[in-house]
Amino acid sequence: MKKLPFILLFTSFHLFAQEIEHIDPPFWWTEMPTEELQIMLHGEEIGDLEPSLEYAGVSLESIEKLPNRNYLVLNLKIAKQTKPGTFKIALKNGKSTQLAIDYELKSRTLDSNRNMGFDASDVIYLLMPDRFANGDPSNDTIEGMFEAADRSNPNGRHGGDIKGVLDNLDYIKDLGMTAVWLTPTFENDMKPSYGAYHGYAATDLYKVDRRFGSNEEFKAFVEKCHGMDMKVIMDMIHNHVGDQHWWMKDLPSDDWFHDIEEYGTTNFRGEVQSDPYASQYDLDKLQKGWFVAEMPDLNQRNPILAKYLIQNSIWWIEYSGVDGIRMDTYVYPYKDYLADWVSEVMTSYPNFNIVGEAWVEKVGHEAYWQEDMEGQDDGYDSQLPSVTDFQIMFALDQALTEDFGWKNGLSKLYYAISQDRLYSDPMKNVVFIDNHDTERFFTKMGEDPDLFKMGYAYLMTIRGIPQVYYGIELMLANDPVSGDGRKRADMIGGWPEDKRSVFTREGRTKKENEAFDYVKKLTNWRKGAEAIHKGKLTHFIPENNTYVYFRHTEDEAVMVVMNQNEKEVEMNRDRFAEILNDYKKGLNVGDGSTIDVTTNFKVGPKQTAIFELKK
Amino acid sequence: MKKLPFILLFTSFHLFAQEIEHIDPPFWWTEMPTEELQIMLHGEEIGDLEPSLEYAGVSLESIEKLPNRNYLVLNLKIAKQTKPGTFKIALKNGKSTQLAIDYELKSRTLDSNRNMGFDASDVIYLLMPDRFANGDPSNDTIEGMFEAADRSNPNGRHGGDIKGVLDNLDYIKDLGMTAVWLTPTFENDMKPSYGAYHGYAATDLYKVDRRFGSNEEFKAFVEKCHGMDMKVIMDMIHNHVGDQHWWMKDLPSDDWFHDIEEYGTTNFRGEVQSDPYASQYDLDKLQKGWFVAEMPDLNQRNPILAKYLIQNSIWWIEYSGVDGIRMDTYVYPYKDYLADWVSEVMTSYPNFNIVGEAWVEKVGHEAYWQEDMEGQDDGYDSQLPSVTDFQIMFALDQALTEDFGWKNGLSKLYYAISQDRLYSDPMKNVVFIDNHDTERFFTKMGEDPDLFKMGYAYLMTIRGIPQVYYGIELMLANDPVSGDGRKRADMIGGWPEDKRSVFTREGRTKKENEAFDYVKKLTNWRKGAEAIHKGKLTHFIPENNTYVYFRHTEDEAVMVVMNQNEKEVEMNRDRFAEILNDYKKGLNVGDGSTIDVTTNFKVGPKQTAIFELKK
Repeated sequence: MKKLPFILLFTSFHLFAQEIEHIDPPFWWTEMPTEELQIMLHGEEIGDLEPSLEYAGVSLESIEKLPNRNYLVLNLKIAKQTKPGTFKIALKNGKSTQLAIDYELKSRTLDSNRNMGFDASDVIYLLMPDRFANGDPSNDTIEGMFEAADRSNPNGRHGGDIKGVLDNLDYIKDLGMTAVWLTPTFENDMKPSYGAYHGYAATDLYKVDRRFGSNEEFKAFVEKCHGMDMKVIMDMIHNHVGDQHWWMKDLPSDDWFHDIEEYGTTNFRGEVQSDPYASQYDLDKLQKGWFVAEMPDLNQRNPILAKYLIQNSIWWIEYSGVDGIRMDTYVYPYKDYLADWVSEVMTSYPNFNIVGEAWVEKVGHEAYWQEDMEGQDDGYDSQLPSVTDFQIMFALDQALTEDFGWKNGLSKLYYAISQDRLYSDPMKNVVFIDNHDTERFFTKMGEDPDLFKMGYAYLMTIRGIPQVYYGIELMLANDPVSGDGRKRADMIGGWPEDKRSVFTREGRTKKENEAFDYVKKLTNWRKGAEAIHKGKLTHFIPENNTYVYFRHTEDEAVMVVMNQNEKEVEMNRDRFAEILNDYKKGLNVGDGSTIDVTTNFKVGPKQTAIFELKK
Repeated sequence: MKKLPFILLFTSFHLFAQEIEHIDPPFWWTEMPTEELQIMLHGEEIGDLEPSLEYAGVSLESIEKLPNRNYLVLNLKIAKQTKPGTFKIALKNGKSTQLAIDYELKSRTLDSNRNMGFDASDVIYLLMPDRFANGDPSNDTIEGMFEAADRSNPNGRHGGDIKGVLDNLDYIKDLGMTAVWLTPTFENDMKPSYGAYHGYAATDLYKVDRRFGSNEEFKAFVEKCHGMDMKVIMDMIHNHVGDQHWWMKDLPSDDWFHDIEEYGTTNFRGEVQSDPYASQYDLDKLQKGWFVAEMPDLNQRNPILAKYLIQNSIWWIEYSGVDGIRMDTYVYPYKDYLADWVSEVMTSYPNFNIVGEAWVEKVGHEAYWQEDMEGQDDGYDSQLPSVTDFQIMFALDQALTEDFGWKNGLSKLYYAISQDRLYSDPMKNVVFIDNHDTERFFTKMGEDPDLFKMGYAYLMTIRGIPQVYYGIELMLANDPVSGDGRKRADMIGGWPEDKRSVFTREGRTKKENEAFDYVKKLTNWRKGAEAIHKGKLTHFIPENNTYVYFRHTEDEAVMVVMNQNEKEVEMNRDRFAEILNDYKKGLNVGDGSTIDVTTNFKVGPKQTAIFELKK
């Protein structure tokens, strides 16, 4: 075991006969929503020591010993009105103090622009820090960490970092984005052969990867975003960690991880959890199988681990001020654990929001994961406010690439949302047309700029909280490389050695500027469009390869006409009289032209025309 | 207006100055579940007359006059303990009695084998009386009715009748069927150009079409079925009637039917009714548009009409003793009316059952129509016990004809039922692989006998109440003719002039006997298979182009292995240990062979193998 230097950042302790390797969480706060605090101590044979502490308001309620005596778990109670400060935790062997730890209780930061949540008035920009911009080349290679940056390997680490994102916040803001979701920034000190640049193989849940920056930089990043009126969504994973996580080198207990010998890899069928007919075999394999061989699967039925994970989330929320969490692989862990986790986070931070990645096959499976569905199922209530709406993406992919028919083409969009009663609140769904795990939208559209724009306009106007994947604003296509790296190209100009920069108008190609201008126009327009943020949705059965829907409040209305025909179509105005009767004109958000909506009107070929209706 | 002779069957009246054309219902019963009775009288200018009656226990509560003064509606109350008998309804003009009607109150038949409902222990045989067998050629052509039989026209009337079905009940029983559903037998005296042999264009809701037989024959048919331990399901339509219905010749009111000038034909999108985003335009067109130009769309918001329709159902249930109703075009009428109708029928006949034809696109749309779903939607509760499970048919069609994949081929079956939490009780769904409106299953399977058998075995073992379409037992394919007639071929041998008879082993071809024997074996086996009638379903994620599920109770279990590979496969027994651990052997229902289920076992190519598990 090597002593990890980061601990020194947060704690200090004198050198005694024994050493502490890990203290998690590294510090805490007073006046937290719950008075409970579980501290995990890790160090050679410290499980045999007797802990004690003295601090007004703080009591050591109980001690939990793990099978591995290199661990010791303390349950503290921190009473309301306890004063911030530092106290000593003494660890004794009989009468001799072997070790004394300084543990800090900080006072909370109570700014109103922290932990604000996100909703349908937002547009979320999803980016991968390793692939966005390399703001600090000095952290590309860190002494003692396994993998160094190598841009020549599409599935390796490229050197992007938090500073790179911070340096380009103006670009993101300019596009009209109101929230940023970074793929995980936890330490992923994995072997280079695995390629953990994506961040989903955490090796320490309390540390930002030093190749991305530091905890302090992450916190400063959140503050900067807040200062620019943008929110930050943190990506977390409670299903698994990386196989280089320090727990793996010194297992806390046999049941900390699920046994890969017994369960193998997962079956990847999250549908099993909501299936009344699921076999135990399939359920076990889903929940206990490993995501990949390099990602040990956490057993959240171990109560110490469950508490550790929940507290870890609370710690990051409190520490950094982030506004929301995107929870990875949401349909894989034990669902009761997930509900407990959501409940504890949302009770502690009522304005917060959480979206779970529920990559499942049908609307019925997806809706299962949204809160308040108890009336229709097995009694389970996920408590989860928001789900990633994969169904919308599936439908759109087909809608724009299939021939039109009763069930096909644009009809897919109609059918997809016509089941929305199954969600307790579909306006809270995160909608998207691609992400870091799917093929790039432009590629899915056969690199057709018209279809691309049709899809983006749909994303900006349909119900829910849109998520935009970095590079879409450039009509970035898949890279012609193998592996997931094909969907995760670097932003050109994010690296000092790049010959041009997509972050500037001059640096972008004509095609890129065409996409950029379109995305920027629509996204910024959406910012002020109350009818999109809050309005009802009314749609009409697709006809003649067109699909028309409205978003409307008492005072405002937006009409969206998707015309997938290769030619201009005349729309029969009377079909839409129930809404159009209140309006006279439609301002085309795309080109600024105006139509008369008191009579039939025309919409050009292959486009999603968005009209702000005017009285 | 011509006087319809059938009235004479039920009522008698003296000849006065005015005449009664219709008295609906023609008679009633004492001791009915509700004391209310609405009688519609129709005759020239009788709306101007004053009705009165005198009978112990019967009171005339109110009179409703329709805009058309050829109608008069009486609301009677028939108190409990009223004695059966006949009373006179006098219709006066001032002091002069213009007309006197004898109205009969019968005593109810309270046999226990009436109105028994149907459930997952049943297999329903669906047939079209016009196409099954011509038991009485003398009724092929009826003087005064528009259309005569003409077997040379695939979309015309062929002369089949109730007697033909009655004569062949042994055949149906022999196959293992436990219930018979006849397409509608109401009078359909429509113009030959329309082709109303199917029965869905009623011209009188109180009369069996004379080309099928009579009301008495229908009643006797039900009694015969009951005597043979088979149930009868009656097909009804409250969405529309035929344009030759007598109401159309003398409209009761302007709002009796929806205005085809205003609404045109329906959009056929039943999904609109459960869609939170539906436009009023689409909803109106769905509910008020006509199914076809020959089928005027009923406005059940007219309370007299609503009462008429509900009472008509009660009348047939009470009169004939039928066990269930299949309600046609269930997703088209006003849904509140439908819920009222179901509620009144089911309250009156608690053991009864009703299945609604809900031909919609997705599980979420289908499940909306089953009772007790109020927790998840707009507050609507359909009250309906059973829906036609189109989703299972859609899935099976694809499952057996697509290449296997994560989402495709057999995986379609897995995904289809894995959303069953959306139904309040999927065991009450009527499942089927074809019906009189779809392509024939054998045709959908590319006339592949192996796929055909795979599908039939699935139908016999999956959850729900299976419905089998006549002719499937012969692997009947679509006829090479145009129009719906292609799916509705005559049963050869049902007509005296036929050269051979599929109703006998000798008359069937080798191919037909192969199908017949398979269908008969499985259907009869299912009759005694409690695990199929009541058992839980447990399934396993499809693998290697196989799909395995179990039906099991505490004491019994059936294992179903669908193997769509062209070769034999070895199944890994340990995957299914959670169920197989209780059993030693599996008896193959298809070929009588036995497998050892304590170890890996083999299943032959392209088959759905059904194993009864033995301890």
